[in-house]
Amino acid sequence: MANYYGLILAGGRGTRFWPRSRRSHSKQVLSVVGERSLIQQTVDRLRPLLPPERLWILTSTHLKDEITRQLPEVPRRQILAEPVPRNTAPAIGLAGRILHSLDPDAVMGVFSADQVIGKPARYLRFLRAAYRAAAQGHIVVLGIQPRWPETGYGYVEFAEGARTGQPSPVVRFHEKPALAAARRYVASGRFYWNAGMFFWRTPVLLEALACHLPGTARLLQTLPCFTDRGFSARLQEVFPKCEKISIDYAVLEKAKGVLGVPCDEIGWSDVGSWNAVYELLPHDADGNVARSEALFTGSRGNYVDASGKLVALLGVQDLIVVDTPDALLVADRAQAQRVGGIVELLEKRKREDLL
Amino acid sequence: MANYYGLILAGGRGTRFWPRSRRSHSKQVLSVVGERSLIQQTVDRLRPLLPPERLWILTSTHLKDEITRQLPEVPRRQILAEPVPRNTAPAIGLAGRILHSLDPDAVMGVFSADQVIGKPARYLRFLRAAYRAAAQGHIVVLGIQPRWPETGYGYVEFAEGARTGQPSPVVRFHEKPALAAARRYVASGRFYWNAGMFFWRTPVLLEALACHLPGTARLLQTLPCFTDRGFSARLQEVFPKCEKISIDYAVLEKAKGVLGVPCDEIGWSDVGSWNAVYELLPHDADGNVARSEALFTGSRGNYVDASGKLVALLGVQDLIVVDTPDALLVADRAQAQRVGGIVELLEKRKREDLL
Repeated sequence: MANYYGLILAGGRGTRFWPRSRRSHSKQVLSVVGERSLIQQTVDRLRPLLPPERLWILTSTHLKDEITRQLPEVPRRQILAEPVPRNTAPAIGLAGRILHSLDPDAVMGVFSADQVIGKPARYLRFLRAAYRAAAQGHIVVLGIQPRWPETGYGYVEFAEGARTGQPSPVVRFHEKPALAAARRYVASGRFYWNAGMFFWRTPVLLEALACHLPGTARLLQTLPCFTDRGFSARLQEVFPKCEKISIDYAVLEKAKGVLGVPCDEIGWSDVGSWNAVYELLPHDADGNVARSEALFTGSRGNYVDASGKLVALLGVQDLIVVDTPDALLVADRAQAQRVGGIVELLEKRKREDLL
Repeated sequence: MANYYGLILAGGRGTRFWPRSRRSHSKQVLSVVGERSLIQQTVDRLRPLLPPERLWILTSTHLKDEITRQLPEVPRRQILAEPVPRNTAPAIGLAGRILHSLDPDAVMGVFSADQVIGKPARYLRFLRAAYRAAAQGHIVVLGIQPRWPETGYGYVEFAEGARTGQPSPVVRFHEKPALAAARRYVASGRFYWNAGMFFWRTPVLLEALACHLPGTARLLQTLPCFTDRGFSARLQEVFPKCEKISIDYAVLEKAKGVLGVPCDEIGWSDVGSWNAVYELLPHDADGNVARSEALFTGSRGNYVDASGKLVALLGVQDLIVVDTPDALLVADRAQAQRVGGIVELLEKRKREDLL
């Protein structure tokens, strides 16, 4: 539709994908699944509904160049770097203000640059339903049918009777639960994963921000028009003063009348770790996944990614092996979530060369 | 002593040390333990008894250049390449003939280029005893006091009453035993590991060869004098016709009146695999050994060797991780003996670049 826009949030560091992910080359620009990078796949997936000229991308100063290089089809001026990371609320507020000034009828969807969706056609059906409801003035969220009691995601609680693909009232947002709660959520059938995909007309967003995050909203109001020469300098000044807070916490949990679209079987994954990549890719008969030349001897359940060299695995199980020219990771697959801890250690040791 | 000579056998491929060991850079020329390579350490260790000008080295055509480079103190003409590998009997016979022609009083010791001896001073005492007995006309072998029931070595059986450091009659040589036999051997106190170190006057060796391996002995007799111009060409012709057989099997097991010198506590190791290297080097509190920069998180009992890059291990146990520019090995430490099998696979696949 002529007034549908997409904001792709692409500022994350993705430290769990070290040593492939680095400050200037983090998860969303990596080809961790498939030939194209995650952000390229995101743009490809949205294309039937949102042509590239309708996409805006907010990222970090470190990543802007690489993203610009990877997405030649997106107008350059629509790829913006946040002066500093301030979580999602200020970023979304900023994009909301820009879009509103350019098209007061804008209906805006928010997407992550680093997720995978295995069934994009089915996903697009749900997306259309979400945009339609947003165009009617609602705040809308996609809910992903949970496949296990994940404690790392927030949940969207629907009222009884919500049906797949139908915009339905959201009872409440729930932050990352403990395992027992997560199990209850999944068993109930009314709780869906919150994948960070939101939809609204820009005035609805800006009003909600003004109401629930007034300080940041006022700061963003002081920005000149996006097409003005002074915009960039003023953004450098204003953005660091915004509150560091997620849109979920700042707005969604507080807003009234939010609708959700329950989605099932779209093959969604947030590709949260090397183990998620392992799970997403096809395995050989011994459960091994090789993204580069590998020789498996008496080895099962391993993931290998080492461009330009042969990796021989002998008698090992369930390992992640990721090799780069200056760093090599060998990790237990079950502990792949903890790879970010290695990056923290390297930061403490001031190993800028490896970050 | 003026007529003591050493022959260092340095023709092995050491495929268990892949990916560091390659055809032209195999185990004996690698610094797997310490700064100096194993063959350099061998020469260093013998020096108090055998100055470099008394050493002869037999190796393969692949390794000759690298060995010559590593051992500038050994006269170049004394570093010889076997035209083809023919196991130890022809190599020792060849060296015996050369030494005999240059010094009819030569007493010759045979050593491996790829062993480690942790206590070289104590070792030298045993070595002197062996040379003295050999000078008196005996065939002499060193026996290494066994530290576990190894099934990968041959054993030397002594008569009752043999004493450490005293040349004593050998009852029999035993080839690699099954585990039950190895246990009996070790329990008996009379069985010592055969480490391939032999001593004899050259006429004693040549007579034994003529008696027990007459075909090969006759072939070697057709060689001209070592200092003759035609030596090298004739060697190319003759050597490939020699029998492929070990000196143990060809001569020692059959010879009468062999003496052995029982050795204890010399810290001998044949450095048979990456696991042996791991065992030889100092460990940190978690049992990890890092030969290059490494970061261990929740990881125990690992060996890391990857020059020029940081290796991060996360939640893994008892792994061998050896990285080179074109190949990376990740192996269970308990299966380090099987690394040679990877090389066999690469040979089958004609991956000459990785051999």
